Amino acid sequence: MARLVRKEYLLAPGPTPVPNGVSLEGARETIHHRTPQFKKIMDEAIEGTKYVFQTANDLFLIASSGTGAMEMAVANLVSPGEKAVVISVGKFGERWEKLCKVFGADVAVIRKEYGDFVSAEELEDFLNKNSSASVVFATLSETSTGTVMNVEGFSSVAKKHDALLAVDCISGLVAEPMKADEWGLDVVVAGSQKGFMLPPGLAYASFNERALQKAEEVTSPRFYFDVRAYAKDPAPWTPAVNLIYQQRAAVKLLKEEGIENIWERHAVLAEATRKGVAALNLELFSKRPGNVLTAVKVPDGVDGGKIVSIMRDEYGVTIAGGQGTMKGKIFRISHLGYVSGFDIVVAFTALEKVLRRLGHSVPFGAGAAGVMKHLEKEGC
Amino acid sequence: MARLVRKEYLLAPGPTPVPNGVSLEGARETIHHRTPQFKKIMDEAIEGTKYVFQTANDLFLIASSGTGAMEMAVANLVSPGEKAVVISVGKFGERWEKLCKVFGADVAVIRKEYGDFVSAEELEDFLNKNSSASVVFATLSETSTGTVMNVEGFSSVAKKHDALLAVDCISGLVAEPMKADEWGLDVVVAGSQKGFMLPPGLAYASFNERALQKAEEVTSPRFYFDVRAYAKDPAPWTPAVNLIYQQRAAVKLLKEEGIENIWERHAVLAEATRKGVAALNLELFSKRPGNVLTAVKVPDGVDGGKIVSIMRDEYGVTIAGGQGTMKGKIFRISHLGYVSGFDIVVAFTALEKVLRRLGHSVPFGAGAAGVMKHLEKEGC
Repeated sequence: MARLVRKEYLLAPGPTPVPNGVSLEGARETIHHRTPQFKKIMDEAIEGTKYVFQTANDLFLIASSGTGAMEMAVANLVSPGEKAVVISVGKFGERWEKLCKVFGADVAVIRKEYGDFVSAEELEDFLNKNSSASVVFATLSETSTGTVMNVEGFSSVAKKHDALLAVDCISGLVAEPMKADEWGLDVVVAGSQKGFMLPPGLAYASFNERALQKAEEVTSPRFYFDVRAYAKDPAPWTPAVNLIYQQRAAVKLLKEEGIENIWERHAVLAEATRKGVAALNLELFSKRPGNVLTAVKVPDGVDGGKIVSIMRDEYGVTIAGGQGTMKGKIFRISHLGYVSGFDIVVAFTALEKVLRRLGHSVPFGAGAAGVMKHLEKEGC
Repeated sequence: MARLVRKEYLLAPGPTPVPNGVSLEGARETIHHRTPQFKKIMDEAIEGTKYVFQTANDLFLIASSGTGAMEMAVANLVSPGEKAVVISVGKFGERWEKLCKVFGADVAVIRKEYGDFVSAEELEDFLNKNSSASVVFATLSETSTGTVMNVEGFSSVAKKHDALLAVDCISGLVAEPMKADEWGLDVVVAGSQKGFMLPPGLAYASFNERALQKAEEVTSPRFYFDVRAYAKDPAPWTPAVNLIYQQRAAVKLLKEEGIENIWERHAVLAEATRKGVAALNLELFSKRPGNVLTAVKVPDGVDGGKIVSIMRDEYGVTIAGGQGTMKGKIFRISHLGYVSGFDIVVAFTALEKVLRRLGHSVPFGAGAAGVMKHLEKEGC
């Protein structure tokens, strides 16, 4: 039996594939962080990241995972006992909720089941009933389900109720249109191992004036994630120097391509993926699927965990399974970041191979055909 | 006028030089963190780090700077209102103090001036007067002054008073002898960009049973740095995958060399550096200088800031200046991590060149001679 070359195809919603040029930037000599030489690099990385955030507000690069940036939002916006509203339609909405509870907030949660979404109108109703809420925590793209929400609408509603809005754009940014300033978002957080095409280890948070002002008043204990320290000095603690080299290189690529073009290609690839799913007679899981990833229901009688593990362990194609209560019920194909149309073809081809092995009969090439027909229609 | 090749020589106490092999490990393809393939890498990185810590206790790899690991120690060991003792002889002792205050501890500080140290006997006296203290926060090597302290002695004293001991070994580890288990240290924290020869962005914390038990009782709010989350799952949030590749590679190098050999070479290089300082008729700053770095008093009439900036900007040799109140009064030559005897010769040669430019007459080669005589005596 012949043995083929094994290559790794990373199609999970973070970490995502890192272009070689960005990888190698991280291998450059580490320089000292308290020097004018590093300051210049840091400034360029921050400026480029602001472009991706579409913001002129203060933006901070944090040595942590995205969860650290979420903690920065909560710890700086909510005092113990203060009323906070969390929009939760999956695992990362639940993370906002947990964080708010840890910091002693009086949390009111608009909860929908996994796969569902919350509309701006529903937030409006909820805020009418919870009018003392001073902060709303929302998610642009709920990574556990692939659901995208109307953050622009949330912002209008929050403003009307004089509440601050903090948005987890960790997986959503780069793939989903997001305009922090035009939409009036107060705090936006994101992470490196998603659309930014970096390895994990760096997170970002933008705070507008209103949010920075609130941070001055908040009494929650915080140190590493104290935004007041970052507002004084962008590197209050030793920054992740080599990841910041990579950040600078990656945002340069993003800026050259242009953010609207990037949003468009993510939308096209997401739609092509959904067409591939339909071509295999599989069912989408999310009621409002976005550009980051496509969650697919595991067909009846098939072991969902095995789809993911065989694709990864035997064929080198890493997609994601379901998280928490979704385990075994869905699988998630990511089309986030440095992902080509042919990568999606590979994902479907591996999926077909594994579904056939697991006794679910699908023809080879059907998924790829669904993907390619859409891409051709879009001129890609 | 001829122009020479410019090379960078990093002789600051963090970040320190990264060996090429370790740099390139970071450029490997990022894989998904929730896979058996990554778990194996993470386990090996943790095991190797435990060897360097000389511990069999739980040890956690954290995506943050060393300050994050310090916050992990404080947030998990101290409840609001609880009495904590901080040993402070410089900037990083002050950081323990600030952290304790942020988390609402009733802090009692044994403070000595920069350059001085606290002995185990002084801690004993202090604990006799502050017998309700349940935790002591200490520093192995105070990076701002190069002072090393008797952590083994602190541990005996803390045990006698039934207080937990948490030690900042961020710059000290690898350079200074440190045996977490033999000395009975409850919590040890460290960071990647020091003796571990990694870029910044990764921190480590070991907790023994007693410390983990304490964390269960403590009421301070914490999430990202909640040690209980790490004790359940070594990667509760997305880990810094590529830095963990590098960690695994670096601890492999350290283990191959042997920790006692590494301690010895740091001791030899530190003594050689002090000999170089003496040969230039310069004065040491610390009353108890250690193996990490050598702090030197700026000679009268010389601009200390210029020593550092000219060495770095014009000659590519990065040493560190004084921090806080020490600014302009001292400079610090690091001999931590991946640093050879010839690197120290380069540092002295550049120092001589700059001192001469700044009007402080020293002969070329005197510092190097001091260094090399000692190294030859040690058979290096």
